[in-house]
Amino acid sequence: MQRAGITGAFSAWMTEVRAAVEVRLRAFFDAERRALESRAPGALPLLDVIDDLTMRGGKRFRPALLAAAHRAVRAEDAAGSSIGETLDAGAALELLQTYLLVHDDWMDGDAVRRGGPSAHVLLARVHSDAHLGASAAILAGDLASAWAWRLLLESLPGDGVGATRALAAARALADVSDEVTLGQYLDIGASTDVETVHRLKTASYTTCGPLRIGALLGSASRAQLDALDRFGSSIGIAFQLRDDVLGVFGDPAQTGKPAGNDLRAGKRTSLVLDTERLGTAHDRTALSRALGRRDASDDDVREATSAIARCGARDRSEERIEALHREALVALDDVALSDTGRSLLLDAAALLVRRAS
Amino acid sequence: MQRAGITGAFSAWMTEVRAAVEVRLRAFFDAERRALESRAPGALPLLDVIDDLTMRGGKRFRPALLAAAHRAVRAEDAAGSSIGETLDAGAALELLQTYLLVHDDWMDGDAVRRGGPSAHVLLARVHSDAHLGASAAILAGDLASAWAWRLLLESLPGDGVGATRALAAARALADVSDEVTLGQYLDIGASTDVETVHRLKTASYTTCGPLRIGALLGSASRAQLDALDRFGSSIGIAFQLRDDVLGVFGDPAQTGKPAGNDLRAGKRTSLVLDTERLGTAHDRTALSRALGRRDASDDDVREATSAIARCGARDRSEERIEALHREALVALDDVALSDTGRSLLLDAAALLVRRAS
Repeated sequence: MQRAGITGAFSAWMTEVRAAVEVRLRAFFDAERRALESRAPGALPLLDVIDDLTMRGGKRFRPALLAAAHRAVRAEDAAGSSIGETLDAGAALELLQTYLLVHDDWMDGDAVRRGGPSAHVLLARVHSDAHLGASAAILAGDLASAWAWRLLLESLPGDGVGATRALAAARALADVSDEVTLGQYLDIGASTDVETVHRLKTASYTTCGPLRIGALLGSASRAQLDALDRFGSSIGIAFQLRDDVLGVFGDPAQTGKPAGNDLRAGKRTSLVLDTERLGTAHDRTALSRALGRRDASDDDVREATSAIARCGARDRSEERIEALHREALVALDDVALSDTGRSLLLDAAALLVRRAS
Repeated sequence: MQRAGITGAFSAWMTEVRAAVEVRLRAFFDAERRALESRAPGALPLLDVIDDLTMRGGKRFRPALLAAAHRAVRAEDAAGSSIGETLDAGAALELLQTYLLVHDDWMDGDAVRRGGPSAHVLLARVHSDAHLGASAAILAGDLASAWAWRLLLESLPGDGVGATRALAAARALADVSDEVTLGQYLDIGASTDVETVHRLKTASYTTCGPLRIGALLGSASRAQLDALDRFGSSIGIAFQLRDDVLGVFGDPAQTGKPAGNDLRAGKRTSLVLDTERLGTAHDRTALSRALGRRDASDDDVREATSAIARCGARDRSEERIEALHREALVALDDVALSDTGRSLLLDAAALLVRRAS
């Protein structure tokens, strides 16, 4: 039983996948641009926004996880490169991500994404009108979703056993699209069932979906699929809990988000719910002076942050993250996986759970 | 060469398809409801809206056309029912339609759809907030799209030649999703290239897509696919031109839309563009008193309507519709199709082009 800390194996893998996926996406956008220039040049602003936002950044974690799952379910000496064989599916996940970010940013009123203006802000400038810009952003998301489907489906073999695997992978993408939408709806409705939201909104397309698609493309067994699903669900929820902890306690220089951002935005994270439940009257008052108040002072934010730590809410989140991490490792214990693939997955889990940005 | 007028064959077919598709959709929504009740009951309002809007009406023209294309490419004595074998794909098209209507209605600010409140209006009531209602409506559309994919993909055989056909049909759905989004974007941007908008926004998912998916599921030849695509493109554009003519000259009792609706909404149809180009100064003034003016009087609307007829714009649209109808018939002249299927397609074309509602 291998229970590695961060070994660096997955980071190196992610660097390799990132380079390959960005080349693939560049080629995809260039081909779509040539096609649009002849059939509907008036729609080029939608392509510009999708291209810009997709290429502007992102760690390409999801394609790397997808390729690692593919590697894990194949024999150690299998011919072909998992990074090469899953490249289009990985690029499709990045387009899915663009679709989700564009719609979410408009819903949440977030004006900045990946260090630049979000899609509805860019498109409101193009059309000199906020509603037209918002409408165009919704369409940019819809288009990125259609392109994710196109890239996944066109890349795959059209017949034989390849078609069967392709169809299974496509069904997995439909499930991801369904779950992430349900999760976002629960989130905007301020559901207090935080782990259900995390499972649907985050784990679905960050971990479970990529793992499942990669494994299906590698002809995984039922036992492998089930183990990867349990692994993915645990690290996906842990990933979101870590995100929420970093949103309050992270170093702004590393996270790229101003301190207090999540509190001022009023995000009802586990930290917030636990503070409301566990904190003293003083803690709850301190929290309420920053939570959901865009105009809260830096002092208000510091007081609220202290209350979250003091009442034990922060410790509870850290303990839950550790427990989920252990569950994830256990999920892989008794299933047959290639050594290389297993190392990548274990390292990915440690990286997700312990990251500082 | 058969060049039928309206024979009634397609109407009877549509009645049969409609009944079958509505049973299928009912079962689909009931199954999704049971699943949601256990995994995410908080998301039931999204299902309610999709279910309500989808079942509230619609002629189910697209599933009927899809099944007719399937019938047309198969041998006259093939076993199995085209309506039965294409039922899930047809139901998927109805979910795609719901997705598009929900997003479009929010963009266009349309408060009524199929005789009831549109999705963003219903959801703004649920959440007592316009922006939350709009966000929820975008998610309802996104969810209907994911469900269209699920229904198309899950219904199809997972292996053998069935998987190859299924994959081809799924690729066609990705193309439809892409085109209809581009068309809607050109439309909200008030593109003056009306026939490109009609081809992308209307023909893609009303005629070409259903025909292509039905034909692919029936293992059509390349020649059959090409002929159906030309047929579909012509009748799809003619369908939209007929829609625009009915929007101005139709009988409100039959169309279900108030007279002057399209003019007051400022739709820049062929009728409008031709009147601006062909009309006298008097005609153009009359048009401008109603076009895009929500507060235009019934007299203003009558004057504008008269101007559109007087300057020849209405006749031009009727001539273009007839020319497109002839092109559609010619497209099917030299291709091998079953007699039953050919009759259905010709009758569908006549019905689309000559309808009064």
